[in-house]
Amino acid sequence: MSIAAFRADLGDVPVEDHPRIVQQRSRDHYWYSPVLKAKLDHVSAEIVVSPRTQDEVKRVLAAAYKHKVAVTPRGAGTGNYGQAMPLAGGAMLNLMNLDRVVRIEKDRVRAEAGTVLEKLDNETRAAVGGELRFHPSTYRMASLGGFIAGGSGGVGSIRWGGLRNLGSILSVKIITCEEGPRALELTGEDVLKVAHAYGTNGIIVEAEMPLAPAYDWVDIMVGFDDFITACRFAETVASQESLLLKELSPCAAPIAQEYFNRHKSYVRDGQSVVLIMAAPVAVEPVLIYLAHYGGEVLYRSDEASEEELRRLPPIYELAWNHTTLRALKVDPTITYLQTRYPTLKHVEKIVSLLGDELPMHIEMTRQDGEVTFAGLPLVRYTSEERLEEIVRIHEDNECLVFNPHRYTLEEGGMKRTDKAQLAFKKEADPTGLLNPGKMVAWDDPDYDFNAGRAWLFQGLEPYAL
Amino acid sequence: MSIAAFRADLGDVPVEDHPRIVQQRSRDHYWYSPVLKAKLDHVSAEIVVSPRTQDEVKRVLAAAYKHKVAVTPRGAGTGNYGQAMPLAGGAMLNLMNLDRVVRIEKDRVRAEAGTVLEKLDNETRAAVGGELRFHPSTYRMASLGGFIAGGSGGVGSIRWGGLRNLGSILSVKIITCEEGPRALELTGEDVLKVAHAYGTNGIIVEAEMPLAPAYDWVDIMVGFDDFITACRFAETVASQESLLLKELSPCAAPIAQEYFNRHKSYVRDGQSVVLIMAAPVAVEPVLIYLAHYGGEVLYRSDEASEEELRRLPPIYELAWNHTTLRALKVDPTITYLQTRYPTLKHVEKIVSLLGDELPMHIEMTRQDGEVTFAGLPLVRYTSEERLEEIVRIHEDNECLVFNPHRYTLEEGGMKRTDKAQLAFKKEADPTGLLNPGKMVAWDDPDYDFNAGRAWLFQGLEPYAL
Repeated sequence: MSIAAFRADLGDVPVEDHPRIVQQRSRDHYWYSPVLKAKLDHVSAEIVVSPRTQDEVKRVLAAAYKHKVAVTPRGAGTGNYGQAMPLAGGAMLNLMNLDRVVRIEKDRVRAEAGTVLEKLDNETRAAVGGELRFHPSTYRMASLGGFIAGGSGGVGSIRWGGLRNLGSILSVKIITCEEGPRALELTGEDVLKVAHAYGTNGIIVEAEMPLAPAYDWVDIMVGFDDFITACRFAETVASQESLLLKELSPCAAPIAQEYFNRHKSYVRDGQSVVLIMAAPVAVEPVLIYLAHYGGEVLYRSDEASEEELRRLPPIYELAWNHTTLRALKVDPTITYLQTRYPTLKHVEKIVSLLGDELPMHIEMTRQDGEVTFAGLPLVRYTSEERLEEIVRIHEDNECLVFNPHRYTLEEGGMKRTDKAQLAFKKEADPTGLLNPGKMVAWDDPDYDFNAGRAWLFQGLEPYAL
Repeated sequence: MSIAAFRADLGDVPVEDHPRIVQQRSRDHYWYSPVLKAKLDHVSAEIVVSPRTQDEVKRVLAAAYKHKVAVTPRGAGTGNYGQAMPLAGGAMLNLMNLDRVVRIEKDRVRAEAGTVLEKLDNETRAAVGGELRFHPSTYRMASLGGFIAGGSGGVGSIRWGGLRNLGSILSVKIITCEEGPRALELTGEDVLKVAHAYGTNGIIVEAEMPLAPAYDWVDIMVGFDDFITACRFAETVASQESLLLKELSPCAAPIAQEYFNRHKSYVRDGQSVVLIMAAPVAVEPVLIYLAHYGGEVLYRSDEASEEELRRLPPIYELAWNHTTLRALKVDPTITYLQTRYPTLKHVEKIVSLLGDELPMHIEMTRQDGEVTFAGLPLVRYTSEERLEEIVRIHEDNECLVFNPHRYTLEEGGMKRTDKAQLAFKKEADPTGLLNPGKMVAWDDPDYDFNAGRAWLFQGLEPYAL
């Protein structure tokens, strides 16, 4: 590969090769994981390329193909599985300049990959009163393309499931990495070929998403003396189809007291909290359930002062991966896991086994017709061995772990890379230049597709009878 | 009681006492049940009173109290448990003149009890793009008050649960039957005191309901060679939070061929059908699932001709109690049951045991966080004994039956009349004039509240810890 020859073919596509800036842009939030941090700290691209149009993306990919330059696509870099870390060096493809909102309709929006999610919602709310069904807690920075390439769900999953569900992404436009790069429009099941594939089999440049009705969501934080009661309340509330919620997350003590810097003054010692975003019509019934479960309202945005509204971050910036982020800011030794607890009993068991070594953080979601306890517990990290042991304790107790301390698609366990997806990489990236090292099945043709354990994205097969 | 004295106290409130008209207005759809038909055919009020304002309702109730006249409230009379049958004669209180839409807000609407549901939706759609979360199949005739007093859910329950869930009814205004009738506003849990209470403990005059976003729902009818495969498809589709549906109902062959007169030409011999209402964004993914399950599209309204759209009733008028209604029109010996099947295996078992004696009709709903098979199977009726046997066969196989061949609240099994509800009747109707004979617990103070078997409305207790 020749970076110089590659660069010469780019014409006036903006590039950046100052080593410090390139190094900075070669990072995502992989440092959430001490394991990934140790493994990936040295990684850097050699050049950052920032196309402004889809035609420029084609030119970049044609040049990469011609000169055999590895290309790692990047949105805002807010992912935390190392998905945007350029393992093979080469070019970092910054897609944030592709930020055109193409079309807003009553029930859907089409936009370019670099569009920031919050900005997109602001436009669709103003135009048609709609917003994305769900978004990560990095909503104010993350891009649409990055969310599709590396996300799975988030704020809104309590109502709408996840990105993996058919119908959650209506269409994705990718550009292939070939001698003559093509634009391909994927719809229906084909969307799953590139969703949560880290850009390994096509560069996402545009997507069409369904819109949910936008509400003036009310942020509520409630407190319980006992974490399991908090979970019981959350499960009951989550099970009511009548209650329109966007977020519902029980966090065990002392998460709020220790890590929610700007909210901690609302929380008493020993209280576990539940973070809630509720549509205005749902607030009253949620508070009725709260009273029955013996909880108390600690904060609600619809009764907050101007000063509070200015000072406090939105409740979703305490939830999902932001819970970990806030803990990390206070205590850099903290990390986390991604888990799923089949029932509340399983949550209770793990809490009893691991106690404060694993401050529990649950995200209530709906998946495949059921209310589920998705876990994002914090981990007071001591060693990689102990982390593996904690994973094993989960598995021994029939709790699923999607390991966030792995940077490949397969080992992370979020997605099963099946044959259809590998086949699509052969078509869209025949020489394997896109985000090399992230799809094990590409590098190891004998890879056993069933080797992993639990998958959030199950590939294309479950849709067959 | 003196009807003449009662009438004299009504002033200019419109009344009707022509025996044939009174008899006509003393009927609901109780004749769905041959059992109720035999028991209630002779029932008639003596006078129909049709107040035009809430003040006139108060005047009517004051006069009824003074003269000890039984009062049975009535909306459009589309209920089919005999709930609007005036067992004790007296006055039929026709509320259809109370049809003012009081207030439309972005996410809720407040209207008087006599407002027809379709008319209400038309107004809220035009004003704020919202519609009721769910409605009965009698949408074009039924009133808001009647739906709350006698309904449980319906079209939309696949997404929003049922009326019994906290938050499904925001507020109900009732008028008491006392010397000086009072207007009481019930909110929160108190709503459950009068929801599905047949007007036994207060006359509903106004209600506030949350709105769901309105879509241009697409009517789809699909066909399968095998009913259980149709159910499997329906269960899978129902379990996808990403698929925005309003209706999803598998009907076994030969229901469509024999009873769906205007749709039967679309259906091949032996095909079971699934009736679907899908938001435009959900159509494509639903059809992907359909293909995987080997089903075929028989009709879709978004590709129908003008002529078809004119000729065919909306798909919801094939579903819920309209399935029975259409069968009854063709074969007057048919009746139905209301059941719940815990799993598809249970559906399969009952179908295998009862075959064509019980042409199976399922409504997929979401209740308490789970996708459920709500059954409204047709019954080829032969005798009351055999009907009871069919009920027993269900119960012996762990399938719930909410018996629609009973006219009291308790025996129908839709609602558990608990002590709080009985207490409320004592407050709102101290002399027991409202819809006498429908609340067993009123007439029998020793009634065992736990005597019934299955309740759809569980009363107020489950909300306690």
